[in-house]
Amino acid sequence: MELNEIYAPVSADLERVEGALRGIGKVDFPWLAQLLNHSLGAGGKRIRPALTLLSGRFFDYRFQFLLHMALSIELMHTATLIHDDAIDKSDTRRGRATIYKLWGTDPAILFGDYLFARAGVSVSYTESIRAIRLFSETLMTISRGELLQASNAFNLNQTREIYLQRIFGKTASLFCLSTETGGILSLAPESAIEALKSYGKSLGMAFQIVDDILDFIGSEEELGKPAGSDLAQGTLTLPAMLLNERFPADNPIKLLFENRTETRHIREAIEQVRNSSIVEQCFKVAREYCGQACDSLKQLPDNTARHSLADLAEFVVQRRV
Amino acid sequence: MELNEIYAPVSADLERVEGALRGIGKVDFPWLAQLLNHSLGAGGKRIRPALTLLSGRFFDYRFQFLLHMALSIELMHTATLIHDDAIDKSDTRRGRATIYKLWGTDPAILFGDYLFARAGVSVSYTESIRAIRLFSETLMTISRGELLQASNAFNLNQTREIYLQRIFGKTASLFCLSTETGGILSLAPESAIEALKSYGKSLGMAFQIVDDILDFIGSEEELGKPAGSDLAQGTLTLPAMLLNERFPADNPIKLLFENRTETRHIREAIEQVRNSSIVEQCFKVAREYCGQACDSLKQLPDNTARHSLADLAEFVVQRRV
Repeated sequence: MELNEIYAPVSADLERVEGALRGIGKVDFPWLAQLLNHSLGAGGKRIRPALTLLSGRFFDYRFQFLLHMALSIELMHTATLIHDDAIDKSDTRRGRATIYKLWGTDPAILFGDYLFARAGVSVSYTESIRAIRLFSETLMTISRGELLQASNAFNLNQTREIYLQRIFGKTASLFCLSTETGGILSLAPESAIEALKSYGKSLGMAFQIVDDILDFIGSEEELGKPAGSDLAQGTLTLPAMLLNERFPADNPIKLLFENRTETRHIREAIEQVRNSSIVEQCFKVAREYCGQACDSLKQLPDNTARHSLADLAEFVVQRRV
Repeated sequence: MELNEIYAPVSADLERVEGALRGIGKVDFPWLAQLLNHSLGAGGKRIRPALTLLSGRFFDYRFQFLLHMALSIELMHTATLIHDDAIDKSDTRRGRATIYKLWGTDPAILFGDYLFARAGVSVSYTESIRAIRLFSETLMTISRGELLQASNAFNLNQTREIYLQRIFGKTASLFCLSTETGGILSLAPESAIEALKSYGKSLGMAFQIVDDILDFIGSEEELGKPAGSDLAQGTLTLPAMLLNERFPADNPIKLLFENRTETRHIREAIEQVRNSSIVEQCFKVAREYCGQACDSLKQLPDNTARHSLADLAEFVVQRRV
């Protein structure tokens, strides 16, 4: 199923989110306008704004508030990517040059800060203290997760628990925010908010595990960046963990983490993961999370938005990009 | 007059702000705790939290909300300094090693983001949508100002207007936020909020102009960093502008901006500014802003807080650190 079919119950309003994102680029400082247009015009799956709008479809669909929430989440997401790219020294993202590549680290830092602030302004228009607080708490979780990742770079001795904690911080926390605030702003009862939150969390975990698999099995064209970029950063993801567990005495991950400049070990690791059952094993974990996501949906009223959220869980594990 | 005398009407509550800042360092991730303790334990003048509390003293002094506001402003301020130090590659601040120097650029980016988020959580506890929105709008102004500064680095052809816009963004906007929200959260009438805002703006302009003067006339010990650091970054401040205006054909600023590696021109510029009437001319501009600040106070009820704010304006132009 294609994303635009899945988004059908909110597609007109997603267009309005897209329009509002473009509107943010209309500022009177030409360089800032250029930075905004470059980073907000790149498109992308817009999965987070879609989650907020779909999650708002179960009770009182107050679009005027949901719009600002969706906008603020997409802006925060973009800001974190801009800072991440500067840290990882990534030249491309979604097949386009990064802010870091085009303008350097310093503008990437300052422009990311500007986007965080702009996101904060947007979320204030939800007029919900609860949504606003969750927004900032989520950004705390994300940056804490990134610090955790930095402190564990090139460390082979990480437990599965640390990995799960890391991908929750990196991805699932923002999925959670998207769905939970969709519930809050549509005045859903607490039990429904809880169900949406739990759906968002499981979906986000599945999404990141699939991302981590694609970094091994995707082509550069599909990924919009070279494969193996996690390993190049010393980030131990699930496929790498499993490869290391299978061959503890000798494997390319171990060799790479011992000697970071030997980048041929990245190609070897990709090769070995692709030619093993590790990929299937990782997909199984992702599918388990998707199953949990779908289970959470059962507590919500049955409508087209619920079908979309279920289809989205399916999409997340089947996607190649 | 010493700062602790000026702060007298709110000194017990400023201690509580200080205690709350220390409390923020109590997290279960040792590296994060270390980063928090290093950056929040450094002290400093705490002029912004003091402004919020003093500004709250004219009407309904609701400390439970003012505390969170003061906290969020100090956290945001600290976060911007951490990012600035990473951008400027500054080794010391307030005489102590910077986060950048101790841990590098990447942790400085991520930890700054964490502090922005933590600040956002604090401001949500003011339960005032208006204060929350102003908080984010101010961070937008600050980052926009930093981008403006970056785009004008080593550019000799800047108008006085651009300079004033830049120091508003860099410093006065946050002073403004401190005083304006003090008014908002103490349920002051609009005219008083306006007066506090205008006081904060003028005070902040004066503060930054004095900062820019001190970068020429202060000793490394007083500054907690080497003198001439603005010039080293290619930042054209008021004293440098005036020197360039006086000797347009040939002056060390011009030579430095033409050849950035010739750092001896920094020493020459410092020397020439110190031995001219430029310092006095700049102080005159700063004192004019202080006069405007004090004028704004006339519209507020006469109490000890108003005396403190007037004394603070005096302090700002007389300080050496």
